[in-house]
This record gives sequence, C-alpha cells and structure tokens, in this order.
Amino acid sequence: MKEKECKTPYDIFRQRINIIIHGVNTPAGRLFDIILLFIILLSVVLVMLESVETLDIVYHRFFIISEWVITIFFSIEYILRIISTRKPLKYIFSFYGIIDLISILPMYLSFFIPSSKILTVVRALRLLRLFRILNLVQFSGQASQLKLAINASKTKIIVFIYFVFIISILLGAVMYVVESPESGFTSIPTSIYWCIVTLTTVGYGDIAPITPLGKVIASFIMILGYGIIAVPTGIVTAELASGSKSRKLLPGACPKCGTSDHRNTAEFCYKCGTTLEN
Amino acid sequence: MKEKECKTPYDIFRQRINIIIHGVNTPAGRLFDIILLFIILLSVVLVMLESVETLDIVYHRFFIISEWVITIFFSIEYILRIISTRKPLKYIFSFYGIIDLISILPMYLSFFIPSSKILTVVRALRLLRLFRILNLVQFSGQASQLKLAINASKTKIIVFIYFVFIISILLGAVMYVVESPESGFTSIPTSIYWCIVTLTTVGYGDIAPITPLGKVIASFIMILGYGIIAVPTGIVTAELASGSKSRKLLPGACPKCGTSDHRNTAEFCYKCGTTLEN
Amino acid sequence: MKEKECKTPYDIFRQRINIIIHGVNTPAGRLFDIILLFIILLSVVLVMLESVETLDIVYHRFFIISEWVITIFFSIEYILRIISTRKPLKYIFSFYGIIDLISILPMYLSFFIPSSKILTVVRALRLLRLFRILNLVQFSGQASQLKLAINASKTKIIVFIYFVFIISILLGAVMYVVESPESGFTSIPTSIYWCIVTLTTVGYGDIAPITPLGKVIASFIMILGYGIIAVPTGIVTAELASGSKSRKLLPGACPKCGTSDHRNTAEFCYKCGTTLEN
Amino acid sequence: MKEKECKTPYDIFRQRINIIIHGVNTPAGRLFDIILLFIILLSVVLVMLESVETLDIVYHRFFIISEWVITIFFSIEYILRIISTRKPLKYIFSFYGIIDLISILPMYLSFFIPSSKILTVVRALRLLRLFRILNLVQFSGQASQLKLAINASKTKIIVFIYFVFIISILLGAVMYVVESPESGFTSIPTSIYWCIVTLTTVGYGDIAPITPLGKVIASFIMILGYGIIAVPTGIVTAELASGSKSRKLLPGACPKCGTSDHRNTAEFCYKCGTTLEN
Repeated sequence: MKEKECKTPYDIFRQRINIIIHGVNTPAGRLFDIILLFIILLSVVLVMLESVETLDIVYHRFFIISEWVITIFFSIEYILRIISTRKPLKYIFSFYGIIDLISILPMYLSFFIPSSKILTVVRALRLLRLFRILNLVQFSGQASQLKLAINASKTKIIVFIYFVFIISILLGAVMYVVESPESGFTSIPTSIYWCIVTLTTVGYGDIAPITPLGKVIASFIMILGYGIIAVPTGIVTAELASGSKSRKLLPGACPKCGTSDHRNTAEFCYKCGTTLEN
Repeated sequence: MKEKECKTPYDIFRQRINIIIHGVNTPAGRLFDIILLFIILLSVVLVMLESVETLDIVYHRFFIISEWVITIFFSIEYILRIISTRKPLKYIFSFYGIIDLISILPMYLSFFIPSSKILTVVRALRLLRLFRILNLVQFSGQASQLKLAINASKTKIIVFIYFVFIISILLGAVMYVVESPESGFTSIPTSIYWCIVTLTTVGYGDIAPITPLGKVIASFIMILGYGIIAVPTGIVTAELASGSKSRKLLPGACPKCGTSDHRNTAEFCYKCGTTLEN
Repeated sequence: MKEKECKTPYDIFRQRINIIIHGVNTPAGRLFDIILLFIILLSVVLVMLESVETLDIVYHRFFIISEWVITIFFSIEYILRIISTRKPLKYIFSFYGIIDLISILPMYLSFFIPSSKILTVVRALRLLRLFRILNLVQFSGQASQLKLAINASKTKIIVFIYFVFIISILLGAVMYVVESPESGFTSIPTSIYWCIVTLTTVGYGDIAPITPLGKVIASFIMILGYGIIAVPTGIVTAELASGSKSRKLLPGACPKCGTSDHRNTAEFCYKCGTTLEN
Repeated sequence: MKEKECKTPYDIFRQRINIIIHGVNTPAGRLFDIILLFIILLSVVLVMLESVETLDIVYHRFFIISEWVITIFFSIEYILRIISTRKPLKYIFSFYGIIDLISILPMYLSFFIPSSKILTVVRALRLLRLFRILNLVQFSGQASQLKLAINASKTKIIVFIYFVFIISILLGAVMYVVESPESGFTSIPTSIYWCIVTLTTVGYGDIAPITPLGKVIASFIMILGYGIIAVPTGIVTAELASGSKSRKLLPGACPKCGTSDHRNTAEFCYKCGTTLEN
C-alpha cells in the first residue's frame, strides 16, 4: 500500500510502458504488438527488395529514407524496453535483446563506414527480427506439441544425420575415384557435396556421373537415399503418434510446458511464466 | 395432395429438370452426369491442346467450332440450373454457380474483344469446371476420411510451413551474402527462391552454389530439408492412425459427415443432405 | 487304382514334366527353377547390353547367337508347359502364358521382318519375363503383408493422385499464363508436365520459371508438394501400423492369404493353393 | 592371488595399455579415446583437402609430413592393440583389425610405388577409420533402438527395393523405345538409370524426355515415385511405433541388447559385454 504512494512519475511512466510492450491482454498492448509485427514484416520486405539491383537503382532514395524511419522506430522501442524492465542488463544480454541491438546498429554504422557491400550484408542482419515474430504470434498448443515431439526425437535424428554424413563421405570418396574430373568430380569435398545432393534427392544436375560404373553407384546412392528417408520420418511419426495419446493438453494447461494444475485465478504458468490463455 | 393438383406445366417441367440435373439415383440423372463429366473433360482437353501452337495452326477452325458447341451446351445447362432450383440467387452466388458462369463468359466476350493473348488466358478459366467433377464423382468414405485427417492436422501444417518460410528467408539471405551474383544468387528474393527449391528437395539446378562455403551451407540446407520432411508426414500419419481407430464409419453412416443414426428409410443424411449409399 | 494302371507312357512323361516345372519341393523342380531364373536374368542383361551401340557393334554376332539359344530354351519350356498342364488353353490365355509366348515370338518374327528398329523394340518385350521371377522367388509373408496394406490403402491413394492431377492441371495453366514461352512454358500440357515435375520434387531444371511472379508460384507449388507427400505416406503407414497389430500371421499360416487352420499334414493352403512352409 | 604375484613387467605393461586403449571409465582411457577421435577426424580432413588440386599444389609438403605423422601414430596404436589383447590373431582378422591395417598400409606402400593416381586412391582407404568413431562415440540406447527397428523391417525394404528395380527396368525399356537417342536415352541401361533418377525424385536433368508421349510416361513415373515412397516410410514407421511401445528400455538395462536383469554391481552386460551406463 505504502509503496504505491511513493511512486514517482517516472515509475508510473515505466509501468505504463511495461503494460504496452509486454502486455498481451490490454488493448494498448495488442495494438503495439500488431504495429510491431507490421513494421518488422515491412523492414524484412525492404531488405529483400533493396538487394534487387534493378529496384535499388530506381528507388534508392526511398529505401534509404524508409530504412532510417524503421531504424529510429526500432531504436525507440529498444530504449523503451531497457527502461521498462526491472533488470535492464538481463534484457540487454538476452537472446532477443542482442537481436534487437544488432538490427538497429547497421544504419548507425553507415555514418562511419562508407556505403559498401559489407554494409549491405550487415543490413541483412535486420532479418533476425523475424525471430521476434515467433515470440509475438502465439503458436500455442499446436506448435508446442510439435516442439515436444521434435525434442523427443532429437537424439535419434542426430544419430541418423551422423550416419548420413559418414555414408556421404565414404561414397563421395568412392565416386571421386570412379569418376573423372571432367564430369565435375574434381576433389573429394566436391564429390561429398554431390553425394549429399543425390542422397537427399535434391539432384541439381550441375555434377552428374558419366561413366557406366559411376551411374551404377549413383543409382545405388539414390535408392539408398529414397529408402532411408523413411528413418527420420518414422522417428518423428512414432513420437507424434505416441505423443497424441499421452500428451493431449488438459483444458487450462500451460500451452508451453503442459503443466495443468494452475489456480483458477492464475494468469501466468507457475513453472515457465507463459501467459495462460484461459 | 392439393398442391400436386395445382402444379402448372412449368412446375412439372422444372421438377423434371431438377430430377435430371440433381438426381443421382434416376437413370436420366445418371446419364446427365456422365454426359456432363465427358463434356467437361473434353473441354479441358481442348483448352490444353489449343495452347499447343503447332496444333492450333492446323486445327484452329476445329477448335473454335468445338468451343462454341461446348459453350452453348454449358450455357443451356447454366440456364436450366437457375430455372430448376427454388432459390436461383443462392445458386448464382454459390461457389459452383460462379464457376459455371465464368466458364461460359470468355466465348461471349470474344465478340467484343478481338482475339488476343488475354482472351486465350481467360479461356483457360474453363479449367475451373474441373471442380465440378469433384462434385460429380462421389469419392464418398475414403475421400472424406482423408479430408477429416487433413483438416485435423491443418493448424500444425501451417505452423510447420511458417517455420519453413522463416528458415528459407534467413538461409536465403545468408547464401546471398556468401555466394557471388555470378552463380545466380543475384538478390535476396532469388536466394530465398533457391533456398525453397533446395529445402523441398526439388533442386532445379538453374541456380547452384559454386564457392566452397556456399556448398557447405547448401549441404546443410539439403540435410535439413531431408530431415524436416518427416514433420508434416508425421503429423498427417499420426492423425490418420488415430482416425482409423476412432472414426471407422459405421455401416449405413453418412459418407460425408459420419452421422450414423439415420432412419431405415432415409435416402439423404439429415445433417448435411448427402445421398446415403445404403 | 485302376486309372494308374491305364497310364500311357505319354501320361507318365507328362506327369514327370509337371513335377519338374511346377514342383517346388522336389530336387529336380528346384534345379529347374534356379536354371530358369538364371536364364531369364541372362536374357534381361543381354537385351540391355544389346541396346548399347558401342557393344552391339563389337559383339553383334555373339548377341544374335545367344538370343537364339535363349529363344530355343524358352520355346521348349513353353511347349513343355502346354503339354504338362491338364488345361492347356487355360495356361495359354493366362497372364504368364501370354508373357511366355510374347517373349519368344520376336526372334521368330525376325525371319520375316528384316532387322530394323521396330524389331529391337519388340525384342525388349522379353523383359516381361521379369514377372516370372516374381512368381519363382517366393516372397512369402513379408511381401504379402505389404500387398495387403497397399491394397487396403489403394482407394485412398487413387483419390490422392486424382487431386494431384487436378492441382497440376490448374497450376500448370496458371504458370502458362504467368510465364513467357521463352522460359520453356510453351503450352499448357508442357506447363502441366513442369508442374508435375515440381510437385513431385523431381525438379529436372529443363524448364524453370524466370519471372518473379512465376518464381513465387513455383515456390508455393514446391512447398505444397513437400507438404502433401505426407498424405500417401500417412495412408500407407496408418494401414501398415493397424495391419501389424491384427494381421500378424499365426505360426503355420498360409504366407499368401493368411489362413491358419490347416491340417497338420497339409502341404498346400486349402484356400489359395500356396505351398505351406511349415 | 598367486597369479598376480607371478606377473612379469611385460604383463603389467600389457595390462596398463589394455586399460588405456579399451578402458572407457578410467581417465587415461578417456583421454586416449578423445585423442584418437581427434586424430581420425584430422586424417579424414587431410585426405579430403589433399584431393583439392589448388590446395595440394601449395601445401603438398605439409600434407606429406602430416600424413607421415598420422601414419606413425596409427602404426604405434596398431602394434599396441596387438600386444594388449590376449588373442592377437582374433583382433588382426576382426573387422576393425583389418580396417586399422588398411589405413596405415598406403603410406608404407608409397616407398615402393612412385606417387601416382592409384596411390592417392589407396590413401582414401584411410577414410575407413571413420567406422572406428562409430565404435568410440557410444550411441547407446537411441542408436540401438533404431537398429532394431531397421533390422525388423529389413526384409520388407529389400522386397520393396526389388520391386523398384523391376519397375525401373521395364519403364526404362519403355522410355528407350519411346524417346529418341537425341534426348539422352541412348541405350536401355542409360534409360534405366534415368528411370531410377526420376523414380527416386532426384531429377538431375542431364537426361530429360522431349517427346509428348515421353513426357506423359515420365509424369506417370514421377507420380508413381512420389506415391511409393510411402511404402518404405510406412514400413519403418510402423516398426518404430510398435517398437516404442514394447521395447522401451528399462532403467539399468543394457543400451545395446536391452537385457535388464543385471546385478546391482554389474559393470558390463552379461549377455553382450557392453559397458553399462548406470
């Protein structure tokens, strides 16, 4: 009670910003989220279009101005986020904090570094803000169920990928020996690259065997790749099938970690802090 | 009883047409369906062949005449459908009503617009009548079971496709930075396009990495694409597997919505109006 | 008893051949099967090598002689099969009977028709004897379980393929409209072909979109194809998973049809006539 | 007790080496494993880089020296392994014993054979040591569960691959007949190769049909390949799904063979000798 009275105007300001930025259930918070989502998408589209040379020549001025507008918006957002949280350092060094910083830096760096290819590249770092959307759009339930199944089958998939790599190295070396450099198999790393291209059924065709023996081995690799795709699929499916039976979320359960014994008045999960929908 | 006596000749005519067009169990209705199916397929084949230049030069006259014959047939069918239904407006603005209209319009428009590329394009709209076949050929049971499973796993698949998009944007931007424009990575959108081509294991080969680092990243994208194909497969499979246990249709059940407590004499499902097979 | 005494030498000869050709459990029958298998494979390899021009020039004489030897062997086998069965006409007009005839005819036809491309093509019909191997090598148990699962999911897969076709026709027409003929989309059938190549993730690259809009639609088709591959996989898996529970073959069951209540002394399945392994 | 006293210094030396090489739980044994793992990976990378011509010209001397260092290390390891095991002959003729020998031989052979392409090829045999890593890194549990599922579905997958081969031979021959040699279908083996490339959805594009009928057949092959990929996937998934129910490893169970009734003090599985993790 007493603490509330002692609140300075700055505290009230901070609290209000906190509601806008972090709040999901207030109208102001929702509006902020939608605007942020829109601007991130806009900035992503801008970075993409800027890289198209024919467009950049015509609209260069427009791109520069809109980049500045977006950067200033993101800078203000970044500062407000630091102000509004109780532990600014924790935010600054968090995953999203670093992304937020990286996505505004390039434009300020352009003062010191003359416009060059390096800067264009650095600008593309702004695409990292796409991760923010993952956080904004709440894929509750479905996404977390998927995540659980993928997490559960992670070890098996890594084991599988490891085998794919060893097979690729061995068969790549065999193809290097069998095929002549004229058909594109100029070195063992290139042959391994070709082997991965073939095993995963991508098949660019920039490198393709021409000797009869090379074609026989290639056919073998293709059928192998066609057959072993069943393995990761089987792993995830078995996990999802067993998950859909046991892990069906109870009503009122946390969409992230599945904990369900919350108090009726709870607004956040007591285990992971996710906003409860119910 | 009394109503029947008051029927005007027009009413009787309307009713008869109704039986022919909408009836499935009468011989006349069945014959009409088969003829319609045949003409739609014929018109689809015609649109396809007309686009082959070498054929169009030789058989141009034949194509024009047969198009007019088909258009007139479809026009008569369209008018009869309007006449025969009790609520003509509902049909006109329904999905199939609009398709039926669009598929006959292009030929009438050719009076006003001189033959040009635009018209050829518009003619292709006639292909939309293929959807009619979906309605004609009754894929009862099997198709609806598939639909249920796909509907149930829709949300998860959308979440999955969203992740695929974000991964493609980020890795596409990385490849744009790594590879030089000489190898085809001329802009970020092009690189994203290449990334989708690679991730989905299509692999055209029109754009392919040439730098060693680009090949390493490409290999990573391929193995990723090869591995995550397991996710949509797992989702649909788990859904179908759980569905095949619980959703087995009872004998006499509606093939569309699965309702099974029909009266013995029922000919249509009381919930969705589908013709009952039993 | 009496009948046995009346047996003419011809009957005894016929019976002996019957044991050799159709018997699986006698040493003579097994030897015959192995020799037949070997000669079929040899003839398949010969047809394949004959088509390689560089080999045909050098070994033409050898190929012709070995073809005649094989044809004579197959002819004798064909005559013996007709003699040994009780109902020769049934064999002659059966699936394998027709294949056996077709595989020996081409060589005899070469007397009347001078050596030409048509004859080489007709010779390839000998490859149809590969089906014989399916009959020789007994894939009992595993193969029949597979067959059951595929048969059970056949209707669903046909429905699925039908949808793939309609999607390909519609999206192919769209791409024809969007892309210019310069990039390979010269007609609607060609565009449909490209669409199937893309949707099935084959991706030859002989035809590839070059306009931005075309690339966007292509990306959509790829992700669609990448996603809907889950459907046939899900169907077969769900069927196999439910099959592996209920259809586990009992010990002593017929490997082909699964009937299990055979007498202890039974050597053939009383339902389908397959040789019992136990 | 008595035996221990009789130990000669050589025995103690042998025992110590045994602990270092085969021990997993001692610090010395672990360090040895990590060093070995590192050197194998290093030698693999060296073999790969050596094959890149531009690198080999610049760093030829460095490659030769490091190869000698690695070969000497592997030679010492090989000798120590022979000394430390009780049955040297069993090790020498075991799978890993032969690989260990093959991977050191090439360098010693280079004394007698002048540096040539053959030797470079033989050097690549050193890649076989990658199999050692499989043995070093203990993929317990997950990998063995995968192995069990793959072993269980092996027969079915072989049957499936056999069908894929027959289909490829028949359809390859059909395409050879339909397409002209100008489009790349120069012989039946080449057409079969193309058919496998298409059926497995790899699609290089080095050979592609150009005639309308060829494209129709190719479309059919693609959709077939797109559909039947479901079969191996279904097999493995069904096996994994049924496995995940019954074969869940009990706590304290052997990660390799699943035996679980070990004594509390057991350090090795009494059935297969694997080190128990618990």
